[in-house]
Amino acid sequence: MRLALGIRYNGQAYEGWQSQRSGRTVQDKLEAALTKFAAQPIGTLCAGRTDAGVHALMQVVHFDTTVEREPFSWMRGTNRFLPDDIAVQWAQPVPDEFHCRASALARRYLYVLSQSPVRPSLDTGRVGWSMHALDGDAMRAAAALLVGRHDFSSFRASACQARSPVKDLRRIEITRVGDGERCRWHFEFEADAFLHHMIRNLMGCLVRIGRGDERPEWISEVLEARSRKVAAPTFSADGLYFLGPLYDAKWGLPAEATLQAGGAPYDGPP
Amino acid sequence: MRLALGIRYNGQAYEGWQSQRSGRTVQDKLEAALTKFAAQPIGTLCAGRTDAGVHALMQVVHFDTTVEREPFSWMRGTNRFLPDDIAVQWAQPVPDEFHCRASALARRYLYVLSQSPVRPSLDTGRVGWSMHALDGDAMRAAAALLVGRHDFSSFRASACQARSPVKDLRRIEITRVGDGERCRWHFEFEADAFLHHMIRNLMGCLVRIGRGDERPEWISEVLEARSRKVAAPTFSADGLYFLGPLYDAKWGLPAEATLQAGGAPYDGPP
Repeated sequence: MRLALGIRYNGQAYEGWQSQRSGRTVQDKLEAALTKFAAQPIGTLCAGRTDAGVHALMQVVHFDTTVEREPFSWMRGTNRFLPDDIAVQWAQPVPDEFHCRASALARRYLYVLSQSPVRPSLDTGRVGWSMHALDGDAMRAAAALLVGRHDFSSFRASACQARSPVKDLRRIEITRVGDGERCRWHFEFEADAFLHHMIRNLMGCLVRIGRGDERPEWISEVLEARSRKVAAPTFSADGLYFLGPLYDAKWGLPAEATLQAGGAPYDGPP
Repeated sequence: MRLALGIRYNGQAYEGWQSQRSGRTVQDKLEAALTKFAAQPIGTLCAGRTDAGVHALMQVVHFDTTVEREPFSWMRGTNRFLPDDIAVQWAQPVPDEFHCRASALARRYLYVLSQSPVRPSLDTGRVGWSMHALDGDAMRAAAALLVGRHDFSSFRASACQARSPVKDLRRIEITRVGDGERCRWHFEFEADAFLHHMIRNLMGCLVRIGRGDERPEWISEVLEARSRKVAAPTFSADGLYFLGPLYDAKWGLPAEATLQAGGAPYDGPP
C-alpha cells in the first residue's frame, strides 16, 4: 500500500530535509518515527527538499508499506515519535501511480521579511530582515518581469541537481502587512518546480531593488545573463516556508494539496 | 539620567524574566549587554516579570546611568551584545519620577491558542494547544463575568508576591482567527495589574468552558470561592505574550506604550 503524508516543521534545528550521516535532518527524524510506529523500516521520498533552516507548512512525502492502519492512526502514532518541531498533518492512502515528486503540478513557497530598524528577536530564525524601507511597487515591477517560462540559471546554486534550468514561474505576489516604518512583507512564489536556492537568490535581487539600489529592469539583465555572478548574494533562509506542492484532484488528497481552478488561496502561516 | 527601554523577546530559552543564579534569564542577558555597552554596571527594573517560556512584545524597563548617548545608540549598541532572541525596540530618556512598574496604568497580555487535531510543530513553544473544538460564545459569556474589580485569589499562584489579590480586569477579548476545524484563538487581557499565573489560570478555566466541560456561569463560582483549589490547572506558558504596559502620555513614551483614550488597538504578534 502507498501512503502520502503532509508534514509541517520548523527547520531551525535541522540540516535541511535530506538525510545526512549526522541524523540531524527532518527526513531522518521522520523515517525514524515511521519505522518505530510501523515496526518495519520505512524510507520516504519528498516533494521538495528544503535547505537547512527552511520551514515547511506542508511538505508531502510518500512511501510503501505492508502495515495497515487507519490514516488517523498513522498521523497520531507517528507524531508520538517525532520531535516537538515536526508533525504529520494528515495521512492518505494513494494509488501506486502517485509519486509525491513526479505527480506535483506546482509548488509554492512563502518568504516572510521583517522591515524594521531593529533586528528580529521574538521571531528570530522565522523571518528574514531588512533594516531599510522597501518600495513595494518597484519590487512588484521586477517580479512581473520574472513571471513566465525562463532559463533561471542566474538564480541557480552551483550544487543544483535539476536536469534543466528552465522553469515556469507562474506567480509572485508581494504583500505588505502593517503600515509605518516597521512592517512585514510576504513574498509568495508559485512555479512548476524551483532550482536549488532559486527563491533565496530571487529574494536577494528583489530586496536590492526594493531598497532602490537597482532599477526594476535590472532583474531582466540578471535573468538574461544566465550567470550566477551577476545576481545578488543568496538571501537568508530564515524567512522561507515551503507552502507545499499541488496535485491533480484525481488523487483525492486534502484540499490544501490540490490544484484548484485558479489556484488555491493562501492565508499566511500557519 | 533615567532611561526607559522597550524590549522584545522569545521566552523559550529562558527561565523567565527575573535574574537567577544560573544567569539564564532575560534580565541577566539584558543587564550584561547594557553593562558592556555602557562600560558601567547597570541594573534594571521591569514592568511585568514574565514566567519561564513566556514571550514579550514590549517589556518596559528603566535604569539610571551617567552615560550619555543618543537613544538610537542605546538601542543599536545594546542589541549588539544581546542574544538573537532578545532585542531592544526603543530607548527613551524619562524624568526621574517615572517608574516602569509604579507608573504603569495598565498591562496587556495575549494568549495564542491553536485549535487542531494535530499538536503544534512549526510554532511549538509559541502557541498553546487544544485538540478539542472550542465554543467562542461560551468563553465570551464567561469572560464577561470576569471583567471588573474582583478578588482574583482563585486564579493566584501560591508564590504570588502581590500585596492585594484585588485587580481591575478591564477587558478580555476573544477572537477566532480562521475557519474550520483548525484555527487559532486570540485571548487579549487588559488589567491594572495581574497576579502571578493569573492569565494561565484564567486560560485553564476558559478552555474548560470552551470545551463544554463546564457552563459559563461556573466561572463565577470559581471567582467567588477565592480558592485556587476550585479552578482548572494552570495552562501552558507556551502561547502567552506580554504585550506591554501602558503609561500616561505625559511621559512621552512611544505610542504603543501610551494609554490612549479608549485603549490602543492591538494587531497581533508581532
